[in-house]
Amino acid sequence: MRISELAERTGVPVPTLKYYLREGLLPAGQAQGRTRAAYADTHVERVRLIRALVEGAAMPIASVRAVVRAIENPPASRHELLGVAHGLIPHPHQGAEVTDEVRQLVADAGWSVSSTAPALPMLAGAIATARSAGLTLDLAVLLDYAAAADGVAAVDLREVVEQSPADAVRSVAVGTVLLDVVLAAMRRLAQESSSARGSG
Amino acid sequence: MRISELAERTGVPVPTLKYYLREGLLPAGQAQGRTRAAYADTHVERVRLIRALVEGAAMPIASVRAVVRAIENPPASRHELLGVAHGLIPHPHQGAEVTDEVRQLVADAGWSVSSTAPALPMLAGAIATARSAGLTLDLAVLLDYAAAADGVAAVDLREVVEQSPADAVRSVAVGTVLLDVVLAAMRRLAQESSSARGSG
Repeated sequence: MRISELAERTGVPVPTLKYYLREGLLPAGQAQGRTRAAYADTHVERVRLIRALVEGAAMPIASVRAVVRAIENPPASRHELLGVAHGLIPHPHQGAEVTDEVRQLVADAGWSVSSTAPALPMLAGAIATARSAGLTLDLAVLLDYAAAADGVAAVDLREVVEQSPADAVRSVAVGTVLLDVVLAAMRRLAQESSSARGSG
Repeated sequence: MRISELAERTGVPVPTLKYYLREGLLPAGQAQGRTRAAYADTHVERVRLIRALVEGAAMPIASVRAVVRAIENPPASRHELLGVAHGLIPHPHQGAEVTDEVRQLVADAGWSVSSTAPALPMLAGAIATARSAGLTLDLAVLLDYAAAADGVAAVDLREVVEQSPADAVRSVAVGTVLLDVVLAAMRRLAQESSSARGSG
């Protein structure tokens, strides 16, 4: 298909598609003469993936580029896959100091993680921010949340083990970011339901 | 204390504090003559709460104002409290259509929620975005995530029932938004740990 049809099928304007081509997010179409190129269904899929990350997850263009390159060129070893996928997605609180409390929490939760995992400063920073807003969050409460997070991660990883490396990178990088919003919505619904039951 | 000391203790510059005063986020100090006012420890706490919401949760000023007003003036009935607190915080995908699938999911999860809950379009929009990025997310997987969300909500609400209405509004509104980041960090750590164990 021509770029105009790609624009029509994805709802993304031609100038934006050209921007994605220039930025290396979208692979070039097959050249058909000097000024034309033909695009395939794989381009439609790729544009939808880019839109979901840019619009749905507010991911910066540089991170989106890193995700699509890793999908095109997944790590050979399954062992590296998760670290690579985590390295691609933005982690807030990057500069936060990993506290002894966070190390204790990780140990008490029974988690075995790399000391350079970007989720460690993310957790330390998020806890500090929540406390500065007046929330208490003692270690017992944090451990209960950690147990709930284990439940989420078990669902996350169940399907990934059966997938090809390229699909697995996509599932982890894209799924981690986009399902954070699905899980946040479910948390609000579960709160409301549980509160209604409590007072009903 | 004077406004300069409030600035020093919170690390927030005086012009920003004056902006918070004008915007109604921070209550006026006690007047001491025509151009001076005295601020108390409650102002320090309030400034920290505002900073956590503005910086830590990237919440718009209008939402922060709604949260601080609700804390000053909490709903009389505990039954309304959660709905009020949820109404204060931003929900992405506000215009999304609530699909039959989401209604089915809510029913299958055993959740009893208002048909106007803002988390319903949030969930529908987040699921649609994740699927447009190529994730499958069948109903069985969504139900497993819903069960994990019940675990999170149980921890969320356990402490709230013992609190005063003002503290409960703060816990729900602030805790829901800021702990989303804590939970997202824990989910990444639990994934890494579970993956390391799987391949080890």
